[in-house]
Amino acid sequence: MSYLHKIKIVHRSGTALPRTNSLNSIFKPSSVAVVGASANPEKTGHIILKNIIEGGFRGSVYPINPGAHEILGLQAYQSLLDVPGDVDLVVIVVPAKVVPDIMKQAGEKKAGGAIIISGGFRETGNDDLEQEVINIAKSFGIRVIGPNCQGVNYTDSNLCASWPLITAKGRMAVISQSGTVAAAIGEWAEADGIGVSSCVSLGNKADVNELDLINYFSRDPSTGIISLYVEGTGDGRRFMEVCRDAIERKPIVVLRPGKSSKGRKAAESHTKSIAGSYMVFHAACRQVGVTSAKTIEDLYDFSKILMYTKNRRLLKERTDPYRVAVLTSSGGSGIIAVDCAEEIGVEIPDLSKEAVARLREVLPSHCITRNPLDLTGDTPAERYETAVLELSSSAQADAFLLIFGDPIPRASEVVGRLRRDLALRGSDTEIVVCYIGGGTVGQEEVLHMHQQGIPVFSTPERAMRAIGALAGKL
Amino acid sequence: MSYLHKIKIVHRSGTALPRTNSLNSIFKPSSVAVVGASANPEKTGHIILKNIIEGGFRGSVYPINPGAHEILGLQAYQSLLDVPGDVDLVVIVVPAKVVPDIMKQAGEKKAGGAIIISGGFRETGNDDLEQEVINIAKSFGIRVIGPNCQGVNYTDSNLCASWPLITAKGRMAVISQSGTVAAAIGEWAEADGIGVSSCVSLGNKADVNELDLINYFSRDPSTGIISLYVEGTGDGRRFMEVCRDAIERKPIVVLRPGKSSKGRKAAESHTKSIAGSYMVFHAACRQVGVTSAKTIEDLYDFSKILMYTKNRRLLKERTDPYRVAVLTSSGGSGIIAVDCAEEIGVEIPDLSKEAVARLREVLPSHCITRNPLDLTGDTPAERYETAVLELSSSAQADAFLLIFGDPIPRASEVVGRLRRDLALRGSDTEIVVCYIGGGTVGQEEVLHMHQQGIPVFSTPERAMRAIGALAGKL
Repeated sequence: MSYLHKIKIVHRSGTALPRTNSLNSIFKPSSVAVVGASANPEKTGHIILKNIIEGGFRGSVYPINPGAHEILGLQAYQSLLDVPGDVDLVVIVVPAKVVPDIMKQAGEKKAGGAIIISGGFRETGNDDLEQEVINIAKSFGIRVIGPNCQGVNYTDSNLCASWPLITAKGRMAVISQSGTVAAAIGEWAEADGIGVSSCVSLGNKADVNELDLINYFSRDPSTGIISLYVEGTGDGRRFMEVCRDAIERKPIVVLRPGKSSKGRKAAESHTKSIAGSYMVFHAACRQVGVTSAKTIEDLYDFSKILMYTKNRRLLKERTDPYRVAVLTSSGGSGIIAVDCAEEIGVEIPDLSKEAVARLREVLPSHCITRNPLDLTGDTPAERYETAVLELSSSAQADAFLLIFGDPIPRASEVVGRLRRDLALRGSDTEIVVCYIGGGTVGQEEVLHMHQQGIPVFSTPERAMRAIGALAGKL
Repeated sequence: MSYLHKIKIVHRSGTALPRTNSLNSIFKPSSVAVVGASANPEKTGHIILKNIIEGGFRGSVYPINPGAHEILGLQAYQSLLDVPGDVDLVVIVVPAKVVPDIMKQAGEKKAGGAIIISGGFRETGNDDLEQEVINIAKSFGIRVIGPNCQGVNYTDSNLCASWPLITAKGRMAVISQSGTVAAAIGEWAEADGIGVSSCVSLGNKADVNELDLINYFSRDPSTGIISLYVEGTGDGRRFMEVCRDAIERKPIVVLRPGKSSKGRKAAESHTKSIAGSYMVFHAACRQVGVTSAKTIEDLYDFSKILMYTKNRRLLKERTDPYRVAVLTSSGGSGIIAVDCAEEIGVEIPDLSKEAVARLREVLPSHCITRNPLDLTGDTPAERYETAVLELSSSAQADAFLLIFGDPIPRASEVVGRLRRDLALRGSDTEIVVCYIGGGTVGQEEVLHMHQQGIPVFSTPERAMRAIGALAGKL
């Protein structure tokens, strides 16, 4: 039975869910123009054009710069209006005051989407200029990301109209009011072999906001999880409504700072909006089933585990015990994991006498047969398999945390096989991995596990916090 | 005035500080024999020999294996006794029951040190065998690391008698009851361009324990900070005494799990010793000036910041305010840092009216002149310099946290210059950096900053926690 059976969806009259079809011009454009493209490698207008090209975007790409004939090997045009044929998406990197004219030209070229990188709008007091641009865009039916943002990356289209260049395809959609947070998570996901479906920097949210994007990505076949960083969310009721709907299809993790009074004031400065109460926001998230992250690492880790697992207990009774069996080659890491579990409220159940007896039969005598189960530093990967299959048959846990605390070869192969075996036995026990201290062997094994959809974390504490999120304890 | 002026060193009669000279055979041997060296690449006896060779150890290396003539290009010997001349350090990777004989041979070869990797001693109930080995070693004056450990790496000697292979030279000495924790920190330090002076895996601590090593490294010119992971410390009074003495010369950071009841039990299983009270231990650390880490990431981060800075306030009044000015290109990261500061008890002071007025004169108008100071995403590195010099002249902070939340070139060059300028002005304000979301530019800049001794952290939360440790708040 789905964990969602208790959710009651309420669509109040007059509050239709946001339209999303038109966002396809932003994420899946047939052609892109970069207005303000530059030959100077330090300019944003250069970096974005370069990333669109090097990212492998397959549609037409038009650099627009009145003073250039060619940029990065592409023919440049003096103005948008000089481009032959229509332009689907317009990326704007020119000074704010010029943007209204550019938006009119975009309308003439029948653009469906615009990404305004340029700053100098509401965030600096130029509210009227921002409104003018949006009015023009609306009159032409153009959806706008930004202004004052770090752009959009959508890997399924090979479209990196942003920076840094991230090309690893994955199922995590990152929506962020901070371009830096989006970039950081995208970089981690790339280095980890996980990849992203999208990174969107919201900027001033003059048109498209997090609600439009949550809605869009909840229906996007390339996306498996929505990771959100926001500082203020305007209408809280509307936020909950959209999340209630979207979370039927995809898990949502949110990082929303502003707990401290100084943090809240800084958030209000940054976004020029009322940040509202941190506590009320997070209580609302909990009620709807949105997972709250406390740090940027949490946001990434929680997204990873929820993307790769199916049995999260977001809406069940939070007091339900969640039992984890820890298997480790590193005694120390096992102790650290157990300490962290108690702090979070995840249970580390004692093993039954029968389970211990059976483990003693199948494991070498120097293994310490308790929970955490210390397989010791000489363990081959196969010893984890033996122990998990034994424990699994006596239903000792809701999740197995396997800590590989040494350069153990074949770990990914064995864990992949183990997961298939558990599935064949009808077990829905989760497998979560921490791989730490494994040198180059470890780095490769982590990539292989991620390719198989097994979530891996770099320390026992991060692994256990992620399990806490999965269990609905955080 | 040194922060240490309040420490009163008490040397009680009969408790001489541990002797350390003889540890030179372990860390600075003239020759090394690997007993149990193997040609099989999956065997520990192969990996350790390979790491000693590839690490560039310049003394003689003797593989010992009765069945081999040559291993990894080196002449192999049937027994230790066949090696021509003396052997300074003996690394032992053979089954436990053979170890007493090997130790006798080591004695005959006038070895000064032995590292026993092999398990099968006290941790599996074979207390007598362990005692026998140690008695033999003592009778010959051989100091022993282990047994049941992951070996020793001492980079100044190019000696990696351990795994994984870590060669980056640095000033962090890692002493760990968990080989995995030592390996993980060594790997992070290498990837970060920081390096280590040493990584020592304690194992069963049958002879050399953390106290001997704290004492040794506190006098080791290659070491600038001591990072310790322990699960139990035997005589707590003695631990405090040694730390009191050592901390006069070097800062010490300790991670000691066992806060939870399950964690304590697991620790006692792992180390076969009484873990003792977590709270008492950490209170004692605080009293002596040892910095407590809560996670493995803390242990690394706190060691990094204490290694690179001079003005830590470990023994001052913990209630003294510690004021941080945050300068950021990423508004979101600034908010996150401020939230974290309040949680830790670090102050983010409001800027004086005069300071704000002067900043407004020297910064572009779209910068948000408060604390956190948002220099915005278009900032060049030089804008940080301008702002810090301005704030520094009005003594607004004890530390500057510079968050580079974009791929900002020349950041390392500018921060290095800035630090020199502050020193010339007689300012002892610390500079701490967070570099996040900066792509390949960021990765290079981080390495350059570390080369200059500027501590860099990968998220605002980790940077602020490290500052909390520096300020004595954690």
